[in-house]
Amino acid sequence: MAFSERVTRLKSSLIREILAAAQRPEVMSFAGGLPAEAMLPTLAWEQMPRAMGQYGMSEGEPALREALAAEARALGVDCQASQVLVVSGSQQVLDLAAKLYIDQGTEILLEGPTYLAALQIFQLFGADCLTIAQEQDGPDLQQLRTRLEQHRPAFVYLIPTFQNPSGVCYSEAKRAAVAALLDEFGVTLIEDEPYRELSYDGVDAVPIVARLKRASWIYTGTVSKTLAPGLRVGYLIASPDLFPHLLKLKQSADLHTNRVGQWQALQWIGTEKYRQHLLQLRDFYRARRDAFAEALDRHFCDLADWQVPQGGLFFWLTLKQPLDTRTLLDAALARDVAFMPGEPFFAEPERNPGNLRLNFSHIAPQRLDEGLERLATVIRHAQAAHAA
Amino acid sequence: MAFSERVTRLKSSLIREILAAAQRPEVMSFAGGLPAEAMLPTLAWEQMPRAMGQYGMSEGEPALREALAAEARALGVDCQASQVLVVSGSQQVLDLAAKLYIDQGTEILLEGPTYLAALQIFQLFGADCLTIAQEQDGPDLQQLRTRLEQHRPAFVYLIPTFQNPSGVCYSEAKRAAVAALLDEFGVTLIEDEPYRELSYDGVDAVPIVARLKRASWIYTGTVSKTLAPGLRVGYLIASPDLFPHLLKLKQSADLHTNRVGQWQALQWIGTEKYRQHLLQLRDFYRARRDAFAEALDRHFCDLADWQVPQGGLFFWLTLKQPLDTRTLLDAALARDVAFMPGEPFFAEPERNPGNLRLNFSHIAPQRLDEGLERLATVIRHAQAAHAA
Repeated sequence: MAFSERVTRLKSSLIREILAAAQRPEVMSFAGGLPAEAMLPTLAWEQMPRAMGQYGMSEGEPALREALAAEARALGVDCQASQVLVVSGSQQVLDLAAKLYIDQGTEILLEGPTYLAALQIFQLFGADCLTIAQEQDGPDLQQLRTRLEQHRPAFVYLIPTFQNPSGVCYSEAKRAAVAALLDEFGVTLIEDEPYRELSYDGVDAVPIVARLKRASWIYTGTVSKTLAPGLRVGYLIASPDLFPHLLKLKQSADLHTNRVGQWQALQWIGTEKYRQHLLQLRDFYRARRDAFAEALDRHFCDLADWQVPQGGLFFWLTLKQPLDTRTLLDAALARDVAFMPGEPFFAEPERNPGNLRLNFSHIAPQRLDEGLERLATVIRHAQAAHAA
Repeated sequence: MAFSERVTRLKSSLIREILAAAQRPEVMSFAGGLPAEAMLPTLAWEQMPRAMGQYGMSEGEPALREALAAEARALGVDCQASQVLVVSGSQQVLDLAAKLYIDQGTEILLEGPTYLAALQIFQLFGADCLTIAQEQDGPDLQQLRTRLEQHRPAFVYLIPTFQNPSGVCYSEAKRAAVAALLDEFGVTLIEDEPYRELSYDGVDAVPIVARLKRASWIYTGTVSKTLAPGLRVGYLIASPDLFPHLLKLKQSADLHTNRVGQWQALQWIGTEKYRQHLLQLRDFYRARRDAFAEALDRHFCDLADWQVPQGGLFFWLTLKQPLDTRTLLDAALARDVAFMPGEPFFAEPERNPGNLRLNFSHIAPQRLDEGLERLATVIRHAQAAHAA
C-alpha cells in the first residue's frame, strides 16, 4: 500500500470517538459545538426557483455574495462582492488556505490553544505550527513580535472573537496592535469568526482585517452557528491578491457550494427576520451560559479556574492540579458524560495538560447540574489517584 | 508572497473563461456538461425534518448510505453501507484521492484523454500522470500491461462507462481484462461513473470494481447528472482498507456533506419515481443525441471523425487535419459559439492536438444546426489559413 507521505500525519480519531460516544442518548455531552436543536429555525423552501438544481458558479450565488459583502462592510471591512467566495462550511476555508500556503515544513503561526480541526488540517499538509500564548484580552504581543522577527510564517491564523476553545475576545487595543504588527512584517492574516454573532454582553469588536493597510488577508464566517450547520454554507472574503488562487482551489475541491443551502442562507442574511432570530438566539444562549456558570461555581470552584465567556459556545477550564485530561475520558464516558480534553487544541499537547473545553449550548438545562457533578467527581477521583 | 509550491501548478483558467463566456445568453454553447434545465425535477421539501439543519455525520446520512450500497450491490458491487462515504459532489472524490495518494512525483495512470478536472487536481498535488491510449472499446491492454510492468502507479483512474470526454464505453472483455491486470499488479482502481445512468442504447455493463479480487478500489458516482447538480451530492464506495483514511480526509475537508441535499437525494434513489424520471431523462437525451448526430453529419463530415456515443453527454470529434483547437476559441466566441478544446483533456496537451468535445444535452434544438454550422465555418477558416 503506497499512500502519500501526508497520510502518516492523519490524526487518530479521538475527537470522532468522543463525538460518536456522545451520540448515545443517555450521554450528557459537553463535547461538541452543536447549536441547540430548539433554536434551529424552520426553513421555508416553497419559493426556491427550480434553477437552483442546476450547476452554479464556483464563486457562489451572486446575490449571496453581495449580501455577505454588505454585512462585512457594516463591520468595517472594506470589500466588494467580487472578494467573497462561498464555501462548503467555513471548515473548507482551512482546507483552501492549507493548499494555498502549506508545503512540508512551512511555518505558520497560531494561537495556543486554537481550533483543533484547524491544527489538524494544517499539520496534515505538513505545517510547522508555531504558537502565541493567549492572554485574557488576546495574544501576548511581545511574543507575537518575537515570533515575527525570528520566523517568516506563511500566515497567522487567529480567532479573535469568542475564541474556540478559550472563549477569549481580543480587546480593541490588541486588535489594533496585531494589525500593526502584521502590516509591519507583511504577514497574511486568516481571521476566523464563526462566533461573532453569538455575543451575549454587547461586545461588538471590529475585525482585525478591517484594520490592515498592507498585509494580505482572508476573513471567514459561516451560517452554521446562527442558522443551520446542516446547510454547509460558509464564506471567505479575501484581499484581491489572494482571491483568484482561492477561487481555483475551491473549484478543484468541489466545483461549487450547494445552491439550495446558498439560496436558503440568502433568505435570512441581512433581513429583519434574521435580526429577530439572532436576538432570540442570544437570549437563549445567554441564559444557558449563565446557568452553566452557576453550575460550574457549585461543582468546580475547588478544581479549576475559568472566565465566563462573553460569547461563543464554550467554557475553558484550567485545572488547579494539571493532569492529562485525555486520561479522564474513559471514566467520564463510563458515567455517561462527554467533554473535550484540552490537549488536542495545542500544537504541543504534551506540554499543555490540564484544560477542559465544555460546551454550554447543547445540553438540556435539567441535565446540566447532574452532568457537571459527575464530571467533577471523575476529576476528583483521578486527582486522588494521582496524589496517592 | 510565499505561496505553497503547489500553487505554481494551479492551471490557467481557460476552462473557466470558456464557461464564463458561454453564460452570455446569445452564445450557443457546446462547452459545458450541464443537464438540460427542462429535465431538472421539481423538488419537494415539505416533509424534510427540521433536524436536517443540525450538524451531521462525516460519513453521510445513514439511510442514504444504505440506499447507495443497495444500488451498488444491484450492479454487482459487493459492498456494505459502512463502505459508503457521501461527498460534496463526485469532484470531491478526486480531492480526497489526491490527498490520500499523491506526493510530488507520485506516478498515477490515467486514460488519454481523461476528465480534465481530474487531471488538474492530480497535477496540482504533484502527480506524474502516465496515460494509456483509449481504443473504441476501452484501453489498449498491451499498453496497460507495459505501464504496470514498468511503473508502480499509486492508482489507476478510469471512467469506463460513457467516458468524459471520449464517450467510450469499455466492453465486457476489456473490463474483465483490466480487473485481472490490476489484481495481478495489486494497483488501486478509482472508477468514476457519473454517466452510468445516461445510457441510451441499452448498454448496462458491470463496474470493474465488481470484478476485483485483490486490488483496493474506490467507486464513485453522483446525482448531479440525473437529479440536480445544485445539490452537490455525490458518493464514493471504497474497499474497507481505504475507507477510514478517506473518512478522515473528508472530515478535514468540510466536516460533512450538506444534509438538505442528502435528504433530497434519499427521496429519489431507489424509488419508482426515480426510475420513471430516469426513463424520461434517457428518452430526452437520446433524442438530443440523435438530432446532434444528424446535424454533425450535415456540417462536419469532411472535417472530422467521431463515434456516436451510447451514453453520456458528449461527442468527441477528431479533426481530419489536426490543429491546436485552443486557437479556434476566440473566433468561435466571436461568432457566439462555445466548445471545449480537446487538448486540456490530455496530460500532454501539445502532443494531442485536433480534438473537440461537444456537449449535446444542453443546447436548445432550434439553435443546434446554426451553432454547428458556425463552428464548422470557424474550423474551415482556420484550416484554410493554415494551408495558405
